[in-house]
Amino acid sequence: MIVRLANDEDRAAIWSIIGPTIRAGETYALPHDMSEAGALAYWLGADRETFVAVEDGRIVGTYYVRANQAGGGDHVCNCGYMTATGETGKGVARAMCLHSLDHARERGFRAMQFNFVVSANERAVRLWQAMDFAIVGRLPGAFRHPRLGFVDAFVMFRDL
Amino acid sequence: MIVRLANDEDRAAIWSIIGPTIRAGETYALPHDMSEAGALAYWLGADRETFVAVEDGRIVGTYYVRANQAGGGDHVCNCGYMTATGETGKGVARAMCLHSLDHARERGFRAMQFNFVVSANERAVRLWQAMDFAIVGRLPGAFRHPRLGFVDAFVMFRDL
Repeated sequence: MIVRLANDEDRAAIWSIIGPTIRAGETYALPHDMSEAGALAYWLGADRETFVAVEDGRIVGTYYVRANQAGGGDHVCNCGYMTATGETGKGVARAMCLHSLDHARERGFRAMQFNFVVSANERAVRLWQAMDFAIVGRLPGAFRHPRLGFVDAFVMFRDL
Repeated sequence: MIVRLANDEDRAAIWSIIGPTIRAGETYALPHDMSEAGALAYWLGADRETFVAVEDGRIVGTYYVRANQAGGGDHVCNCGYMTATGETGKGVARAMCLHSLDHARERGFRAMQFNFVVSANERAVRLWQAMDFAIVGRLPGAFRHPRLGFVDAFVMFRDL
């Protein structure tokens, strides 16, 4: 698997990954009915760098990295990762996260923060903990899960 | 003191409040060199409602309220408050916060979250705690204070 910067020719493949995740509404606090154009404008926004994970010529995952805050907070970065349906459980998210940690260090960031990890997304929580992210905050009932109702969200953080 | 929606005629007064706070860079994670137009575009953005606090015809403070997340997170709001230099310590922030709590309830929000309260801003931390906000997260070294160096930031939260 290689991880490389996304380009315009990846847009359809990126949408095929982020579209189902956004529509499901179980893991990201994004509007469920976001248009394809709106979702791509967000995921490929000018305020971030966006990457794709490629295996055997197929794009199996995508992530972005950006500064989490501006001004006096811009030494901490933020990332979002999504893996293609049918490619979960194969280490794609782990590989993207490792890439993002290296890339963020190269960019001069000193720490990485996830602002809103849905507590019911247990696989993600365990993976980030295994990658040395600590739960530094708990937002009570901050996410309306489509099946589970109000669930907590975590703020997760690690130094780089 | 009354608190009312901001309008276009308030722009100069709002800049006279938010400009010095942004330039000082001690309490908000915004670029210190933000232009007046950029700062007003942020503070009066289409994604939020912006209010001013008026005393004896003078604008002494301003705040915004917006959804903190989209999708399954849009029942939690976020606010930012700034008080005019020379008007601090007179209850302006408290009055604006009380107004925002009522307004957010009317809008149907279920909770309010502050994402990035600089720990060195002790007066603000004490005020929010007195207004029933809990520290639900601590972001280690997440803010570069211009005098103090790296300091923690708090995530603060309360139900409505």
